[in-house]
Amino acid sequence: MKIRLLLLFIFIYLNAPAQQKEPNQLFTAGVASGLMGGLFDGFYPVGQLLKKGDFGLGAPDKIDGELLVFKGKAYQTTASGKTVRLPDSHQASFAMVNFFRPVSSVKINRTLSKAELFQLLDSLLPQQNNLYAIHISGKFRQIKTRAFPPVENHPYPTLASMLPLQHFFQMEDITGDLIGYRLPTYMDNTNIAGYHFHFLSTDQQKGGHIVDLSIAEVTISWQTLQSYTVVVPDTPAFQQFDFHQNRAEDIKAVEKGSKH
Amino acid sequence: MKIRLLLLFIFIYLNAPAQQKEPNQLFTAGVASGLMGGLFDGFYPVGQLLKKGDFGLGAPDKIDGELLVFKGKAYQTTASGKTVRLPDSHQASFAMVNFFRPVSSVKINRTLSKAELFQLLDSLLPQQNNLYAIHISGKFRQIKTRAFPPVENHPYPTLASMLPLQHFFQMEDITGDLIGYRLPTYMDNTNIAGYHFHFLSTDQQKGGHIVDLSIAEVTISWQTLQSYTVVVPDTPAFQQFDFHQNRAEDIKAVEKGSKH
Repeated sequence: MKIRLLLLFIFIYLNAPAQQKEPNQLFTAGVASGLMGGLFDGFYPVGQLLKKGDFGLGAPDKIDGELLVFKGKAYQTTASGKTVRLPDSHQASFAMVNFFRPVSSVKINRTLSKAELFQLLDSLLPQQNNLYAIHISGKFRQIKTRAFPPVENHPYPTLASMLPLQHFFQMEDITGDLIGYRLPTYMDNTNIAGYHFHFLSTDQQKGGHIVDLSIAEVTISWQTLQSYTVVVPDTPAFQQFDFHQNRAEDIKAVEKGSKH
Repeated sequence: MKIRLLLLFIFIYLNAPAQQKEPNQLFTAGVASGLMGGLFDGFYPVGQLLKKGDFGLGAPDKIDGELLVFKGKAYQTTASGKTVRLPDSHQASFAMVNFFRPVSSVKINRTLSKAELFQLLDSLLPQQNNLYAIHISGKFRQIKTRAFPPVENHPYPTLASMLPLQHFFQMEDITGDLIGYRLPTYMDNTNIAGYHFHFLSTDQQKGGHIVDLSIAEVTISWQTLQSYTVVVPDTPAFQQFDFHQNRAEDIKAVEKGSKH
């Protein structure tokens, strides 16, 4: 009896969620400037990604839409506008996740544009060189998202050259969740510096990469991340990729959804 | 008796070396472009660093010389030329380590200059976008290393502006170990792209950052690393640091030991 109890405790200990061992770590699969340059083939299984975090965002295989992770589940919003659950076997081409354990939150009960929201976030998160995971949940007056259509044949174009192919989705008076990050300048190139959010509606039918928004009544919660890990794709396309080119402008344009 | 045996196995399991859980990962503390800009105050304890890897290199607190990790022990070579063991309590200002488990090795029995050695390494390690940990052990015809003197008062200068203060050490016909890495282009800025080696003589009396060398009879062994982690310093100086400045030229100059 004693042994069984002991074994039970040990079993619980060994199966304890990974976040207890790696708190406040951002896990990333892939290198953003490679994604900008056309490394669209998936390489990191969603099932494995969900062991590294329960909250995050990314790009599906062949950049077929946008990827979001919320409460331990992965979603894909495609260029058709449909949002679906991603199976564990799906391979992401780029993704970042963390175990979201917010330490602070505020409620905002007034309309703010995207620029005003980002200004507010700047004042709430004053450490410019920290990594922050940010969750904004509630009612939105309007949300504009985009999703890329999937690429088909090699050689793939650059992501910036695909901006004219983006599909945009305009939503009004909608409830849902923004999942995202503010990352510091020194992470640009391997990742995307600044604010970066994806959206999932409460009914899980709509989503995408945030291009524009205004909030109505939301709760903002956040967490500081103290480290980040980059997993390098073990693919021939990655090995042959030329990382010498500066893709900072592409990264900005793709995040914003336009070159201007 | 049964329980004791079980507890023993569990104890062994829970204390198993971390490398079995995180194989082929490069652990880094600090951001290289911050070090270039004068973030010289130590923040990461050597004792903690040695739990993340048994092989590596870095910069001591106040860049008082050069740091090296070999076979699970940390060494400091100061500008006086002395090499000493670093206590667990010492705080590194920048460091990278991994659990060195080489998968390949070659013996070289001829004299090669630094440029020739790097050409040979280029042919042995053909994947330009991979991370490699490299150990070169044996006899060297000559080795030239450098070490910085410690900074004293804030505000600290940039590391590139301290190049005239470097102390150089010239050694002839010496046995020892080169500990280092070849890191890909996309890691420049947060780390130092290209080859980067520190030296420790077999008698553990001499060391430093490699500026020049020629090998005589050595074994080269290496390992591919599939991911890297960056731990962000939780210090006011780091938070206030301006990472917008491009320090690529400084990084190159400091690695080479000169601006030319």
